[in-house]
Order: sequence, then structure tokens, then C-alpha cells
Amino acid sequence: MSKNNIALLVVAHGSRRDASNDEVRKLVELISIRPGILFKIVKPAFLELASPSITEGIEQCIKEGASEIVVFPYFLSAGRHVTEDVPKEVDLKRKEYPQIPIKIANYLGSNQGIADLVLELVT
Amino acid sequence: MSKNNIALLVVAHGSRRDASNDEVRKLVELISIRPGILFKIVKPAFLELASPSITEGIEQCIKEGASEIVVFPYFLSAGRHVTEDVPKEVDLKRKEYPQIPIKIANYLGSNQGIADLVLELVT
Repeated sequence: MSKNNIALLVVAHGSRRDASNDEVRKLVELISIRPGILFKIVKPAFLELASPSITEGIEQCIKEGASEIVVFPYFLSAGRHVTEDVPKEVDLKRKEYPQIPIKIANYLGSNQGIADLVLELVT
Repeated sequence: MSKNNIALLVVAHGSRRDASNDEVRKLVELISIRPGILFKIVKPAFLELASPSITEGIEQCIKEGASEIVVFPYFLSAGRHVTEDVPKEVDLKRKEYPQIPIKIANYLGSNQGIADLVLELVT
């Protein structure tokens, strides 16, 4: 196991509809096959209604040898899920694995590049 | 009123937290000031929990002289909101204003460019 094995955990809300969860899984697949990607491990996780949970996702990353984890909130706005629920789950795991740094990245909606994606889709 | 006055209505889910709705309003502002933008009218609307509603948003566009409207579902996955709820609201307005074409664009999550935004935020 490398000392610098950074994992990316893409955390989405989760849906009762499997098709919606599969969209997140497909995005994760797309990211994981990017040429030159920094992350050796890229996984999805869901806050609720789907598997794996955030806890399970972090455990999977660690089992696969992650020495560091970046949790990415795949949310459009900084609502309670982003500001409270995701950090709460992550904090529990930080206490359990103090030797593994777990960072929470800025949520998707914070990237102003979203305006470009919108314009691509409507024009 | 021009014959080619296309309006863009960015439809988000809507939240009890005003800060979340304000993020959508800011995005709309960002889009509206893009140099060379095709749309003379760019407005936000919310499926639920916030104002204006989709109905109100479409009405506002028409009052401001829109001859055509593009409704953009600002959603990450093609759940029930995207496949049923938004089209249902739009259909009612199509019947009311048959002379105004109202098109529904592909939802945000359908743009594979999202993978790039994710990578910008995590690296």
C-alpha cells in the first residue's frame, strides 16, 4: 500500500429510484477513468436511500488502502445536507481512523463553471 | 416586442432555506450577464417551497415579452421531478399560451462536463 493513496468519495443525496443513483455511479466511473487522474480509488456514496452509505464508502476506501480521503458533496446548494449531515458522518470516521486524513471538498454548486454547463445545454 | 425574444427559465427544486434559493438566483444573474448571451430574459423558478413557481416564472417571461421560452431543469438526476413534475407544469402553460413555444432542455446532470467541474473542486 502506497503512502500516497488518495481516494475520492463522491457523496450524493441518494434516491428511491435506482436510475438516479446509477447516474451518480456512472459519473464516478467517468471520473475514475480520466487519464492522469490523481485518485487511485474513486467511489460513490449516498447520504440516504441508497448504498453504500457515507460510512460504508469511507470504510471501502480504507479497506482498499486509502491513506487519505477527499469527500466530495455532489449537491447543488449548501443546504443542511452539505453544512451538517455530511460533516457529521465524516467526523465519526475521523475519530475512528485518526491516522487517515479525511477532507471535505467544496460542494458542486460552488463551482461557477456550472453557468457554462447550463448554457451548453440550452443553446 | 421582438418576434425572437427567447427567455430562459432556470427551474430548481426549491428549498426551505432561503440561502439555497439565493444560490439559484445568483446563478441566474451570472448567466444573464454573460457577454453575447442569446436570451434577453433569464429568470429563476422553483418546483416547490420557493417563489416564483414554474407557472409564475413562465407568466413573468411572457409579460416581459418572451415569444419563446426554454425551461431548464436545474437538477442533477432525471428523477420524478425532471421526468414528470416539471413537464406537467409546463404542459398547463403550453395549453394556455399555444402561440408561445415552450421547450424543456436537458437537465443539468445530463451534461458529462460535470465530471470536469468535480475534478476542479477536488484537485
